[in-house]
Amino acid sequence: MDSIALIGMVSALSAGLTIGIGAIGPALGEGRAVAQALSAMAQQPDESANITRTLFVGLAMIESTAIYCFVVSMILIFANPFWDHVIAGG
Amino acid sequence: MDSIALIGMVSALSAGLTIGIGAIGPALGEGRAVAQALSAMAQQPDESANITRTLFVGLAMIESTAIYCFVVSMILIFANPFWDHVIAGG
Amino acid sequence: MDSIALIGMVSALSAGLTIGIGAIGPALGEGRAVAQALSAMAQQPDESANITRTLFVGLAMIESTAIYCFVVSMILIFANPFWDHVIAGG
Amino acid sequence: MDSIALIGMVSALSAGLTIGIGAIGPALGEGRAVAQALSAMAQQPDESANITRTLFVGLAMIESTAIYCFVVSMILIFANPFWDHVIAGG
Amino acid sequence: MDSIALIGMVSALSAGLTIGIGAIGPALGEGRAVAQALSAMAQQPDESANITRTLFVGLAMIESTAIYCFVVSMILIFANPFWDHVIAGG
Amino acid sequence: MDSIALIGMVSALSAGLTIGIGAIGPALGEGRAVAQALSAMAQQPDESANITRTLFVGLAMIESTAIYCFVVSMILIFANPFWDHVIAGG
Amino acid sequence: MDSIALIGMVSALSAGLTIGIGAIGPALGEGRAVAQALSAMAQQPDESANITRTLFVGLAMIESTAIYCFVVSMILIFANPFWDHVIAGG
Amino acid sequence: MDSIALIGMVSALSAGLTIGIGAIGPALGEGRAVAQALSAMAQQPDESANITRTLFVGLAMIESTAIYCFVVSMILIFANPFWDHVIAGG
Amino acid sequence: MDSIALIGMVSALSAGLTIGIGAIGPALGEGRAVAQALSAMAQQPDESANITRTLFVGLAMIESTAIYCFVVSMILIFANPFWDHVIAGG
Amino acid sequence: MDSIALIGMVSALSAGLTIGIGAIGPALGEGRAVAQALSAMAQQPDESANITRTLFVGLAMIESTAIYCFVVSMILIFANPFWDHVIAGG
Amino acid sequence: MDSIALIGMVSALSAGLTIGIGAIGPALGEGRAVAQALSAMAQQPDESANITRTLFVGLAMIESTAIYCFVVSMILIFANPFWDHVIAGG
Amino acid sequence: MDSIALIGMVSALSAGLTIGIGAIGPALGEGRAVAQALSAMAQQPDESANITRTLFVGLAMIESTAIYCFVVSMILIFANPFWDHVIAGG
Amino acid sequence: MDSIALIGMVSALSAGLTIGIGAIGPALGEGRAVAQALSAMAQQPDESANITRTLFVGLAMIESTAIYCFVVSMILIFANPFWDHVIAGG
Amino acid sequence: MDSIALIGMVSALSAGLTIGIGAIGPALGEGRAVAQALSAMAQQPDESANITRTLFVGLAMIESTAIYCFVVSMILIFANPFWDHVIAGG
Repeated sequence: MDSIALIGMVSALSAGLTIGIGAIGPALGEGRAVAQALSAMAQQPDESANITRTLFVGLAMIESTAIYCFVVSMILIFANPFWDHVIAGG
Repeated sequence: MDSIALIGMVSALSAGLTIGIGAIGPALGEGRAVAQALSAMAQQPDESANITRTLFVGLAMIESTAIYCFVVSMILIFANPFWDHVIAGG
Repeated sequence: MDSIALIGMVSALSAGLTIGIGAIGPALGEGRAVAQALSAMAQQPDESANITRTLFVGLAMIESTAIYCFVVSMILIFANPFWDHVIAGG
Repeated sequence: MDSIALIGMVSALSAGLTIGIGAIGPALGEGRAVAQALSAMAQQPDESANITRTLFVGLAMIESTAIYCFVVSMILIFANPFWDHVIAGG
Repeated sequence: MDSIALIGMVSALSAGLTIGIGAIGPALGEGRAVAQALSAMAQQPDESANITRTLFVGLAMIESTAIYCFVVSMILIFANPFWDHVIAGG
Repeated sequence: MDSIALIGMVSALSAGLTIGIGAIGPALGEGRAVAQALSAMAQQPDESANITRTLFVGLAMIESTAIYCFVVSMILIFANPFWDHVIAGG
Repeated sequence: MDSIALIGMVSALSAGLTIGIGAIGPALGEGRAVAQALSAMAQQPDESANITRTLFVGLAMIESTAIYCFVVSMILIFANPFWDHVIAGG
Repeated sequence: MDSIALIGMVSALSAGLTIGIGAIGPALGEGRAVAQALSAMAQQPDESANITRTLFVGLAMIESTAIYCFVVSMILIFANPFWDHVIAGG
Repeated sequence: MDSIALIGMVSALSAGLTIGIGAIGPALGEGRAVAQALSAMAQQPDESANITRTLFVGLAMIESTAIYCFVVSMILIFANPFWDHVIAGG
Repeated sequence: MDSIALIGMVSALSAGLTIGIGAIGPALGEGRAVAQALSAMAQQPDESANITRTLFVGLAMIESTAIYCFVVSMILIFANPFWDHVIAGG
Repeated sequence: MDSIALIGMVSALSAGLTIGIGAIGPALGEGRAVAQALSAMAQQPDESANITRTLFVGLAMIESTAIYCFVVSMILIFANPFWDHVIAGG
Repeated sequence: MDSIALIGMVSALSAGLTIGIGAIGPALGEGRAVAQALSAMAQQPDESANITRTLFVGLAMIESTAIYCFVVSMILIFANPFWDHVIAGG
Repeated sequence: MDSIALIGMVSALSAGLTIGIGAIGPALGEGRAVAQALSAMAQQPDESANITRTLFVGLAMIESTAIYCFVVSMILIFANPFWDHVIAGG
Repeated sequence: MDSIALIGMVSALSAGLTIGIGAIGPALGEGRAVAQALSAMAQQPDESANITRTLFVGLAMIESTAIYCFVVSMILIFANPFWDHVIAGG
């Protein structure tokens, strides 16, 4: 097993697991926030605009953790310094 | 075991696990959001349009984490730079 | 162990695990949504049409995550680029 | 260990695990939906027809994820392209 | 380790795990459905016939996922194509 | 390690795990159903006969999943085709 | 490692795990049933005889899954066909 | 590694794990039953004798699953047929 | 690795894990029983003697499962037949 | 790897894990008992002496399971018969 | 396997797992905080400004733990001292 | 790998895991006790002295399980008989 | 595998896991504290200043556990005594 | 692999895991205590001083378990007797 095969296969595995595992938390967290927003909206329709605005800021915040995972996953696939080094004959 | 076999088998495994694990969170999160939307709709029928709109925005947001996983999974199968390198004789 | 055996056995394992693990989330999420729909329907029979419509849109959304898994699973069995490469003598 | 033994044993293991793991989610999801349907029926007997109809559509939807697993499991046993290739002397 | 031993031992293990793991979900799901049925019956005795009928349809649906596991388990023991191939001298 | 030892030891392990793991679900499911039956009986003593009947049908249904596991376990010990083949000199 | 050692050690391990894992479910299930029986008895003392009878039938049913595990465990220790075969010089 | 060491060490490990894992379920189940008995007794002091009697029968039933584990554990240490065979020069 | 080292190290590991894992269940079960006893005592001070008595019988019962683990652990350290055999030159 | 190193390293690992794992249960159980005692005391201040007495007896009982773990851990470090044997040249 | 391959592949794996695992906690924590904020806003609309301000401070605090993970992940990819050392011929 | 390296590395690992795992239980248990104490104090301010006293005794009791872990961890680092033996040339 | 590669790769893995795992607890704990603060603020707006102050002290306390992890993670990357020793030719 | 590499890499791994795992419990426990303190403060503002004092004592107690982990982690990095011995040429 040479360096290229090792770095390549670990990067592929890591890229997949990063976003795979990292999508669990944000999806559950957003599901909870959306569910509560709908419940709050049904309870206090007059505050609907306010609730929606806060919900979207919150969702953006939660989504950011999923974005981190996606960014790391993309870096590991397309801008991987370890891979770039070994295929350059490092 | 040569590089092609190693990269290929890890990519296949990783592609499957990424979407397999990554589908758990979004599905549960969406299930919760939809369930709460139905509950809110039954509680406050007059806010039905508002609830439906917020639900769909929320679902799209949650679905995005599943899409990230699907995209990474597709990249690992059809646009895998590690695989492209080794089959090109890297 | 030659490349064909390795790629083939990992693809078979991955295809199975992808849909096997990936079916847990959607099934639980849909179960929750359906259960809440029935509860909402019993609570507010007049909103029955509205609830049913929202439920079906939601179920379709949740089912989509299961579909992603099924698609990846099918690709890994019948349109697997890694397998196609090695049996073509790659 | 030759290719035939490897592909065969992984396919047998994968076929079993796919339906074994994949049956957990649908069974629990259906159990929840049925339980809530009975509860709703006891609470609002007049909506019984409506509840039953929605329940059956929902159960069919949930069952579909179990069916996906069963289909993949059957394919891995009886229409496995990896196995067909190696026993054909691939 | 020859092919016969490998295929045979993996098939035996897989057959056992398939039904062993696959029995957890249906048993819990049915337990929940039956429990709720009894609760509904105590709450609304007049709907007893209706509840019983829906319960049995639901139990049949849930049982089907256990049946899938049992079928795959039986196939792996008594109609295993991988085993049939290797003992035929494949 | 010859075939007899391998097949024999995997069969023994598999037989034990099948019923060991497979007893968890049915036992918990039956415990829930019995518990709810007693609760329902205390709440609505007049429906006692009806509740008992439904309980027993439900328990039989749940027990069936344990029976599947027991049957597979017995087959793996006493009617194991893989074992029969290897001790016959296969 | 000869066949006798292998079969013997796997049988010992399997016998222990079977009853060890298999005792978790029945014990928890019976604990729940007994707890609910006591609660029901305190709530409806007049139904005491009826509750006790149903409880005992239910406990017997749940205990049966523990018995299955115990039987398989005993068979693996004292009537193990794999062991009997190898010590007979198979 | 000769047979004596292998059989001996697996038996020691198995004996410990059997009762170690097997004590979790009964202890939790009995804890629940006792807790509910005390609660029931505080709620309905007049039924104290009846509750105590049912509790003790239930505890005996739950304890039986722990006893099974202890018996298997003792057999594996002091009456282990696999060990007896190998130290007899089998 | 000779027999003495193997048997000795597995016995030491097994003795520790047995009581380590086996202490989780009884401690949680007793914690629940004691907690409920205090709650019952605050609710019904007049039944204090009765509650205390039942609690102590219950605790003794639960403690017995911890004792089983401790006994097995002690036997594995100080009266281990496998160890006695190998150090006697078996 | 000689016997001294093997026995010594497994004893050190086992001693640590025994008390590490074994502290989880008692700590959670005692936390629950203390929490309930405080709640009961706030609810029924007049029973404070009685509650405190029962609490301390209960805590001692729960602590005993932690003590068992600590004793086994100490024995494995300072009075380990396996270690004593091997360093004596066994 | 030379140092470059080893350090590179472990760094890639570690970078992915760090943010993948580390995103679960913050996402769930933020989801809970946002959900509760919406609920509080519906309950007490007049405190909306105050709630929003506290929510944002809290979210920033929780997000900080995700940032730590992201920072470590980025350091492991782009400013990894171990990697810099080995590719410099260390 | 000589004895010194083996004993040393297992002792370091064991010392860390002991307190790492062993801190989970006490921290959660104390968190629960403190939380309930504050709740009780808010509910019954007059019993504040009594509650505080019982809380501190309880916390000391729970802390003791963490102390056991810390003591074993310290012994494994600074007074480890296995390490002392091997570095003395044992 | 020389010492530099081993120490380097374990340090990179450990640094990532430390903050990755260590971020779960603080993030969930802070999420709970913030959520409850918002709930308390909605319930008792007049105590808003007091609640905010206590919340920030509490968050700082919880954040401290995440800081510990981050510090250890940074030490393992940038001030690692093991790494410093081996690259100095130790 | 020489002793220095082994001891060094296990110490680095152990130091990270100790504080990584050990931060979960205290963070969750403190989160619960702080959350309940805020709830109690909103419910009984007059007891605010008393609640705050008890909270801080409790937090210090819980933090102590995190400190134990941090201390062991620091000892393993900067005052590790095993490492000191091997780099001194032991």
